[in-house]
This record gives sequence, C-alpha cells and structure tokens, in this order.
Amino acid sequence: MKRIAILTSGGDAPGMNAAIRAVARKAIFEGMEVYGINYGYAGLVAGDIRRIDTPDVGDIIQRGGTVLYSARYPEFSTEEGQLKGIEQLNKFGIEGLVVIGGDGSYHGALALTKRGFPAIGIPGTIDNDIPGTDFTIGFDTAINTVLESIDRIRDTATSHVRTFIIEVMGRNAGDIALWAGVAGGADDIVIPEHNFDMAQVAKRVRDGRDRGKKHCLIILAEGVMNGHEFAEQLKEHGDFHARVSVLGHVVRGGSPTARDRVLASKFGSYAVDLLKEGRGGLCIGILNNQVVASDIVETLESKKHQPDVSLYNLNHQISY
Amino acid sequence: MKRIAILTSGGDAPGMNAAIRAVARKAIFEGMEVYGINYGYAGLVAGDIRRIDTPDVGDIIQRGGTVLYSARYPEFSTEEGQLKGIEQLNKFGIEGLVVIGGDGSYHGALALTKRGFPAIGIPGTIDNDIPGTDFTIGFDTAINTVLESIDRIRDTATSHVRTFIIEVMGRNAGDIALWAGVAGGADDIVIPEHNFDMAQVAKRVRDGRDRGKKHCLIILAEGVMNGHEFAEQLKEHGDFHARVSVLGHVVRGGSPTARDRVLASKFGSYAVDLLKEGRGGLCIGILNNQVVASDIVETLESKKHQPDVSLYNLNHQISY
Amino acid sequence: MKRIAILTSGGDAPGMNAAIRAVARKAIFEGMEVYGINYGYAGLVAGDIRRIDTPDVGDIIQRGGTVLYSARYPEFSTEEGQLKGIEQLNKFGIEGLVVIGGDGSYHGALALTKRGFPAIGIPGTIDNDIPGTDFTIGFDTAINTVLESIDRIRDTATSHVRTFIIEVMGRNAGDIALWAGVAGGADDIVIPEHNFDMAQVAKRVRDGRDRGKKHCLIILAEGVMNGHEFAEQLKEHGDFHARVSVLGHVVRGGSPTARDRVLASKFGSYAVDLLKEGRGGLCIGILNNQVVASDIVETLESKKHQPDVSLYNLNHQISY
Amino acid sequence: MKRIAILTSGGDAPGMNAAIRAVARKAIFEGMEVYGINYGYAGLVAGDIRRIDTPDVGDIIQRGGTVLYSARYPEFSTEEGQLKGIEQLNKFGIEGLVVIGGDGSYHGALALTKRGFPAIGIPGTIDNDIPGTDFTIGFDTAINTVLESIDRIRDTATSHVRTFIIEVMGRNAGDIALWAGVAGGADDIVIPEHNFDMAQVAKRVRDGRDRGKKHCLIILAEGVMNGHEFAEQLKEHGDFHARVSVLGHVVRGGSPTARDRVLASKFGSYAVDLLKEGRGGLCIGILNNQVVASDIVETLESKKHQPDVSLYNLNHQISY
Repeated sequence: MKRIAILTSGGDAPGMNAAIRAVARKAIFEGMEVYGINYGYAGLVAGDIRRIDTPDVGDIIQRGGTVLYSARYPEFSTEEGQLKGIEQLNKFGIEGLVVIGGDGSYHGALALTKRGFPAIGIPGTIDNDIPGTDFTIGFDTAINTVLESIDRIRDTATSHVRTFIIEVMGRNAGDIALWAGVAGGADDIVIPEHNFDMAQVAKRVRDGRDRGKKHCLIILAEGVMNGHEFAEQLKEHGDFHARVSVLGHVVRGGSPTARDRVLASKFGSYAVDLLKEGRGGLCIGILNNQVVASDIVETLESKKHQPDVSLYNLNHQISY
Repeated sequence: MKRIAILTSGGDAPGMNAAIRAVARKAIFEGMEVYGINYGYAGLVAGDIRRIDTPDVGDIIQRGGTVLYSARYPEFSTEEGQLKGIEQLNKFGIEGLVVIGGDGSYHGALALTKRGFPAIGIPGTIDNDIPGTDFTIGFDTAINTVLESIDRIRDTATSHVRTFIIEVMGRNAGDIALWAGVAGGADDIVIPEHNFDMAQVAKRVRDGRDRGKKHCLIILAEGVMNGHEFAEQLKEHGDFHARVSVLGHVVRGGSPTARDRVLASKFGSYAVDLLKEGRGGLCIGILNNQVVASDIVETLESKKHQPDVSLYNLNHQISY
Repeated sequence: MKRIAILTSGGDAPGMNAAIRAVARKAIFEGMEVYGINYGYAGLVAGDIRRIDTPDVGDIIQRGGTVLYSARYPEFSTEEGQLKGIEQLNKFGIEGLVVIGGDGSYHGALALTKRGFPAIGIPGTIDNDIPGTDFTIGFDTAINTVLESIDRIRDTATSHVRTFIIEVMGRNAGDIALWAGVAGGADDIVIPEHNFDMAQVAKRVRDGRDRGKKHCLIILAEGVMNGHEFAEQLKEHGDFHARVSVLGHVVRGGSPTARDRVLASKFGSYAVDLLKEGRGGLCIGILNNQVVASDIVETLESKKHQPDVSLYNLNHQISY
Repeated sequence: MKRIAILTSGGDAPGMNAAIRAVARKAIFEGMEVYGINYGYAGLVAGDIRRIDTPDVGDIIQRGGTVLYSARYPEFSTEEGQLKGIEQLNKFGIEGLVVIGGDGSYHGALALTKRGFPAIGIPGTIDNDIPGTDFTIGFDTAINTVLESIDRIRDTATSHVRTFIIEVMGRNAGDIALWAGVAGGADDIVIPEHNFDMAQVAKRVRDGRDRGKKHCLIILAEGVMNGHEFAEQLKEHGDFHARVSVLGHVVRGGSPTARDRVLASKFGSYAVDLLKEGRGGLCIGILNNQVVASDIVETLESKKHQPDVSLYNLNHQISY
C-alpha cells in the first residue's frame, strides 16, 4: 500500500491530533503518501481531501480537538454515501483509510470494509464506550479534566458544608463517572451499568453528615438521568440542599495528557503497520496493556464495552 | 488593640485562606492574639470561636475555599442578631473584627460599625462587584478558571465549526464575562452593564462564518439571562446550531493565582495595621494599584462598583 | 488480623496519600484498627506511631507528598534496626504492615518478612523502577508534570528556533524520559537502557534544521549523564547552541492525576484484602492491567523492572 | 498612517501573541494594512516581512511564544543596521512600527525614533524590568508558573521536612522572586534590590524548624547569585541539608494568564491608536492601573523600573 488517508469523525477527543500525527509520520517513514480528509465522512463524500506532509502535523501533538475537523454525517449509512466515498478514495488513488473516532465512526469503517475497502478504526472518544479496547483516546484527559473540577467543587462544598451532585458526560457509559468518582473521593457514584437505590444514596449522604464530614460529592453519569432530576428525586429522601453542577462540553477539549498522547501514538503507528501489510477491516485497541487489532465486524457485532465495575465496589469500601 | 477576630462570609472565593493567614500572621507578628470565627455571622452569634496560632494558618495559602467555613445568615440583619454577636465578641475579649467576603458580609461589618464595634471589611468574592476596590480577592483566579474552560471549548468549537454560548457567573456584574471574554478572544460579550442587540450579536456570528472563521464563542454574564434562554432568542435571528455551556460552581474553587494570593496578603496585613491603630468602620480595597481604606458607611451607601466597560469596546475592535 | 499499620518511605510521590487513605478506609471498613507510622522506618524504630481514624485521611486524596512524612533511614538495614522495629510493632499490637515506597522501602519490607512479620509493599515512586509492576504510584503524575514543562519549553524553542536538552529525573531508569519524550514529540530520547550514538543525535538535530523545523527537543534521562555534560559532548558534533533545562524536584510533587489516584486506591484496598487473609511477604503491582501480588523475596531477588523500550523505536519513527 | 508593522524581539514572553493579535486586528479595524516582521530586528534588516491579515492572527491569543519569532541581533545597535532597517521599512511602504519586547527591543525602537521613524514600544518580558510600566506582558504568567512549582516543591519539602532554595529567573530584577515568594508563602526572599544577611536567612530557617515547621522555602532571584552558590554560603551558618531547585526556561513559555492577555490586548490596541494619530517615539505601559504612553527617549534615559519592595517587608511580617 503506497497511499493512505486519515479522517476523524464524531465528537472530538483530546489526543486525536496526536493520532493523526502518528499515522502521518509513520506512513511517511515507511515511504507512503498520506492524505487528510476534512470533516469526517462528510468531507470524504465531498472530496475535501488534501495531501499531508511532515510539517503539516508538526506542533499539533499537544493540541486538543482535531486539525482535520469533524462532523456528524448520518448520510454515510446509506449505500449512496458509501459508494460516493469509495469513488472519492479511488479518485485520489488512496488504498487504505484510518478512521479515528467513536461508535458512529466505526460503523462507517465497517461499511467500507464490507464493500471491500481496507479501513482501520482507532478508538477516539472521551466516553470510553468502544468495544475492543480497555481505553479510548481522550478518556484519560477527560477524567483528569473532570477531576480538576471535582477538586475545585470540593473547596466550595467543604467551605459551605454542602452536598453537590456533579453530572458528568459519558453518553450511555459510566466510565468517566467511575474513574473520576474514585479519583475524586466521591461519596457515591451513580452509573447506568449498576443499579442504584436513591434511599441508599440518601443514607450515604446522611451518614457522612452524622460523622461530621464537611463535604459530600455525588458523581452522576449523564446516562442515568440529568443532575436536576436526580436532585429532585434525592429530595424525597431528605432535604440535603444539594447543588447541581453539570460538567458539559468543557471536558471535551484541552491539551491531551501524557497517556493519551502515548496511546494515540501507539495506535496510529500500529494502524500503519497493518495497512502496510495490506490488512484492513480491523479496529485497534489496548487490551490488558497490549496494543491489539480485532476484526471490526466481529467486534462491533458481538462485543460490548464494559466499564471496570470493580471500581464501583471499591469506592463504596474506601470513600465514606 | 490586643485581641482581634476573623470571619469569612458569603460565597467562598480563592484567596480567602491567604487573607486569613495574612491577618493572623501579621497580628501575631504585632503581638496581638487572634481568634477565628467559624461559619461567618452564624458562628459569631453561636459563639463558634477558637484561638488561632501561627501553625493553624500554615500550609493554607495555596488552598481554595475557606478554613473558617462560610454560611449565609440573614438573621444577622436583625438587631437581635447583631447584639448577640457583639455579646459573643465581648465575651471572648475581642476588640476588633476582620470580615472577609462580599456584599452581604460588608453589610454585617457596617452594622457592627454602627453599633460601635470596630470592624474592617476585606473584599472576597469571585464576582468583583464590591464598591471601594478595583479588584476583589478571588476574581483573578475565577477569570483564569473560566479562561481555561473557554480555551477547552474553543478546541471543540473549532473542530466542529460550531457556535458556543458560554454562560459565566458574576451575579449582577459583568466583570468575569468581560475579562474572560477579552482574554478568551470571544466573538461577543454580553453583560448587564451594557446594552446589547440580539440582531447585532447574530450579525457578528454570521460575519465570522462568512469570513471562514471556524469557531464562534459568545460569553454571557449570568446577570443578563441564562444561556439556554439566550440561545432561544438568538435562534430567532438565524439558526447557528449554538451549543450552550454553563460554567457554574466549578469556577468558585481551586488554588488561588499569584495575584489573588498577593492581594489577599496585602489586604490582610493592612487590616491589622488599621485595627492596631484602633481604626474600624473601614473597608479595604485596591484603587489604581494602591491599597486603600475607605469609610465603610460611605462606600456602601454611595458608591457602586463599575466594571471596566472600555474592555467591551476593545473586544469589539480586536475580536472578530 | 485486627490491627495494621502504614508507612511511607523513600522519595515522596504523588498518590501516596491516596494509597494511605485507601489502606486506612478499607481496613476500617473491614473492621480493623489502623495505625500510621511517621517518617518511614525511622519513625517505626522510634515508635512515632499514632492511631488513624476515618477523618484523619479525609481531604488528602488530592494532595501531593505524604501526610505520614518520609525519611531515608539506612540503619534499617541492620539487624538491630529491624528487631527494634518489630518490637515497636508488637508493643502497639500491630499484626501487619503496609509499606508504600520505592526500592529501599521494599528492602525494609523484605527484611521484616524474613523475620516473620507480615509486610506488604506498594510501589510508590515517580521513577517507575520497581520490579513486579508495570506502573508505580506517582509515575503518571510525574510524566504529566514533565510534559507540561516540555510543552512550555517548546514555545520558547520554536520562538527562538533553538535546540533544548531537557534532563529529567528517573534515577537509573529511563521510563520518565521515554513516556514524556514520546508524549512531548521529542526529536530524540536518551535513556540508560538503550545505546545511543552522539553522532546520530547530532544528525537528528541537523536533519530537523534542514527540513525547516523550528524547535528541537532532546529528552535526557538523568541516569545517562547530566544535561550540561551532554551539551558539551553534543557540541563536538556541531554547534547547535543547545540550551539545557534540568527538571528537578519540581516534578516530584503536585496533585496526583486520576490514574495515580485510582491505582493507589486499588493497591491500598488490595493490600488490606491480603493482610485480612493473613498474607504477608508480598508486593503489589499492576501487570497487564490486572492488580496482582507477587512474592516480595522472589520479586526483589530475581526480577528487574524493564521500561517499554518499544517506545524508543516508536519515537524514532514518528518524531522527526 | 495607513501601513504599520510589528516585530517581537528579545526573550519570548507569554502574551506576545495576544499583543500581536491586538495590534493587527485593531489596525485592520481602523482600515490600516499590517505587516509582520519575522525574527525581530534581524528579520527587519533582512527584509523577512509579510502581510498579515485577520485570520493570520486567529487562534493565537492563547499560545505562548511568538508567531513572529524572535532573535538577538546586536548588529542593530550600529548605524548600518539601523539604516538598513529603515530602508526595508520604506521599501514596504511601512510608516510606523510596533516593537514588542524587553530592554534591548526598546533600544532598537529608540534608535529608529531618533532617526525619525515612528516606533512604539510595548513591554513584553517575563522579568518585569522595563521602565515606564508597573507590569510587563508575560510577568503574570511567569509568576503563576513559578508558583505552581513552589506549590509542588512544598509537597516534597513538607514530606521530608526539608529546606529548599528555589532559584528563579528575572535577570537583574527581583520582581518574579518577590511576587512568587509572597504568593508561595516563602520563608525568605532574596533579591538584588534589597540587602540580605546570610546569618539572618539562617536564623529564619532555624526559627521555623524550632517552631516545628515542616518545610522551609527560600526564593532566590538569579540576579543575586546562583542557587548552588547560595546553598554553599548558607551552609557556613548551619547545616540545613538544603536542596537547590533551579527554575529555568520552563517558566518562559506556556499559555498566558487572563491578565497577561488582557494587558497585551490593551497595549496592542493603544499602540495603534497612537500610530493612527501619527505619534511615535513612545513606549506603552500600565501605571497605577491606567494604560499610558511615555516618551521613549526620556523613559529609557532617565527612568528605572523599581520592584514593589513593600512586598519584601510584608513577607517578613506574615511568612514565618
């Protein structure tokens, strides 16, 4: 394979630029030509494609967001969209594609694969909800950003002896809530993947108060319900004057952490290794600390990401 | 004066601990005894008062929040509350009081002053809305925290070519929005102290788009309206698919900046200088880069904080 | 086991407090009593031991350093020191000990184990140089702190078109240099575990210049040589006007990252699980993303930590 | 004036990009044409000059360093250099010049002024050592960066009950040491502008120890002597096992603080106001919180920046 392309798709995640850089530099190192596709699948279909050279990906490893831009493009689920996309790839003489993104992005890569075009998926999303990998690019940065906010809110909660409900992103996944909750010393963590009983949450708040604890922090995954609704329901079990803080888009951006940059670099480099051997139809991940590639069809159709629920029990045992 | 006390009141602000430390250390340096009152005026009335020695304020200069805790206590506006407070101060032999906080805290200090008890106000609030000072303790930290969030959101806004409305704290004041807006390169800033025309806001968004600008950020002071309402009104002038991000309590806490710590140190030290001379009924501030004391009665009754509205025009001229 | 103790030893590392908290809270959760030993083995021998209850480890999860203090104490390698230590443990009725620290700390735990006292080692050091684990507590924070500095230096290097040699900590290990180097987009990384040829380093610098690259960053592990010596040797291969920046103690402290806090929480909790079962003579680690316990005698005597040298080659392929 | 140019010179400082952006945007807003000169006076003489349009200064307000690059160029102190520079400016039809930088940069602007070319100086240096202004662009960011390091080192110093000497930048000025020292709660601050007595420094260290203080931090301005020399001299007054930490280039870069960005925006905008009126030969500053312009000849020849030495005494009274 002599000519490959890269696109980013779905919500942006810190580390996407590090992955773009790794793909481009590794491919150039291997003697390939590299093209960047702007605005994800929308740009693919529209032919918004440009040659990328070494300096084009210089000085981006530390930047949040994606220099290739991103966009939602549901039209790529249609046959017409996919054929048009492959037509564009052929027009530019591109033989392989690296897609960096989340769930929706993977389905685009899957569709291309089924139509015979070699595509490789790299998991890039803050939500950590992608099958075939323990960690996605952007997750580590996001939990540290959430954690900074939790640490700040703790100052106020302690100063005013107050209970805070902190709603965090994650779509249907509880990973951000779990990790940031354990790291933030949350009194309770509420996630979609584990049942919760509001009476028990209220009991934890009350018990902390009774022991003289100044602050009480409850981390709530947005996939369960929104923070204000949760506060309403909690109120039925006692009036804790709980404040609600919603950490929204502010946790998507920012300069990626060391771990996200290293992970992105490994993933990007490995994607090129695979394409160089002519292999496509794969998605890359890190499982048990090893970078691996799995069949994208099988992974998407039969696997599901599971958060590390042991963190839930751990938190109940050490955070009170 | 040989024995003084300190309390913090109202919303917590980064740098309050640095001010507590400065008051305590300077007073001890001058041979005075120092007492800390927990939970603001509520603790004053309840007699929740404790001796403070040098190590008690060690290792707190860098911490957000307030180690003396804070509380709202409307009852202190009554004669009964005030007399009870003075009774407690007398019981402990306390001859002067330093109050660190915002508007409400100042009114408590004013009431004590009118009843003959020497009190000094130090402006501590992130909102920067206190008369008698150009800057309050906590403001500098808050604008930097908001700025970090703006920088993060810009990554996402650029990656998705999107418009964001970022609602920031400040109660009725536009200072946080103005400073963070100019520093963040906002396309527009909307504050209570300056008229705005939604059609003009929409025009700025549209003009940016037309020039090929990728991101568009509008900083909205909460004193104008909430972000979601603003987004609704903006929609009537064109569909920009604007996202709303509300930066709430997350900007109250955190380790104070250098400037907030230095300001707090100067204010705290100066408050002791004044009490040492037997002077009360004053509020401290920084005006034209000089630390000054003003009559608290006159300041509260006849002055009003005005934001630096020149920043508004500046932003229109350089941020587009 | 009903009564256990904790100590921290060796250089402090961010996350030690999170580990202390996890051990204490988990043990209390399991109905045990917990004692804290101040100043590591020095305090153990001196009997500087105090009961720890739930609130004593509150609000410390986010703090750098160690609330139990640390100290070097070579005397603990003597029989006299060890017997005295066990005597103190017996005096307080302590049946098991958790030691958080690096290499030297482990040898103390090993000595106690050989004398029949159940001790568990938790790897806490920024250097990541402990056998039996892929990652130590503090490493993730340290590489992110180094990375922040690299990102800052890149601003200056780019603005002045300059070459920087950045010397980083790590004792005899190259892990910090490797990870921070890959994450920082270093032009070259020089570590003790991999040969290097100064002529090749000079060639990389020159090649970057020739391609028009503005900045050039070389990350040097302190275990190889010091930065100024390196600069001297580099000069023999061409005058690059290289500046040297030594990142010293500044990378030891700071609030731990999410990952260090979670790792510390898992390690601490697991240590209590083991002691509860009466098991000692073990050291805890994370291998292939699983928390595990290994025999401390065997681990210290026959294993050696190896950095992920694949990062070295990765960097040569993507960072130029 | 219809066509102006900008250059940055001397050591880079965070906020230089915000100033470049403000000059460019304000000038374009006023209907002028703007040119950027690369590599300071070296680029001026060489004619490395390019047109700058609105998007060229987009997305740079948050970046450290300078997109116009900087360089030392002593040749500009010669008549030949200056005439060649003016020749280049004339060739491009440039009628006014904004120079952003420190002392040396100002002397270049002064030389152009004396030769009849309208130049305006904007103070940009982390050292805060420029006459005609209370604060320079970059100083606020630098003291916050130093402060972060002090806070980190305090963790280690406390954990090991240790004394640290922290050497900070500032050339011959003590401003960084003073502000960061007060903000960091330093036990002592040693600056060129104030006498010090090593025996007294040693006494402060000893007194702190005697009171049970865990950490001891001495902030040393590089203009006094280097940290290792200081440690040697301190040793003659008692063995405190002091460690030395040198904060070097790492404090030059980084994303500018809110205050530096606002200051840079005001300065840049004001420079254009002046040039628009045809005024040159001025340097801009902030004095008593007002943005002002002073005659550059008079300022450089008769004024000298003085640090706020009241901070020195303040620190002695509250930091112990």
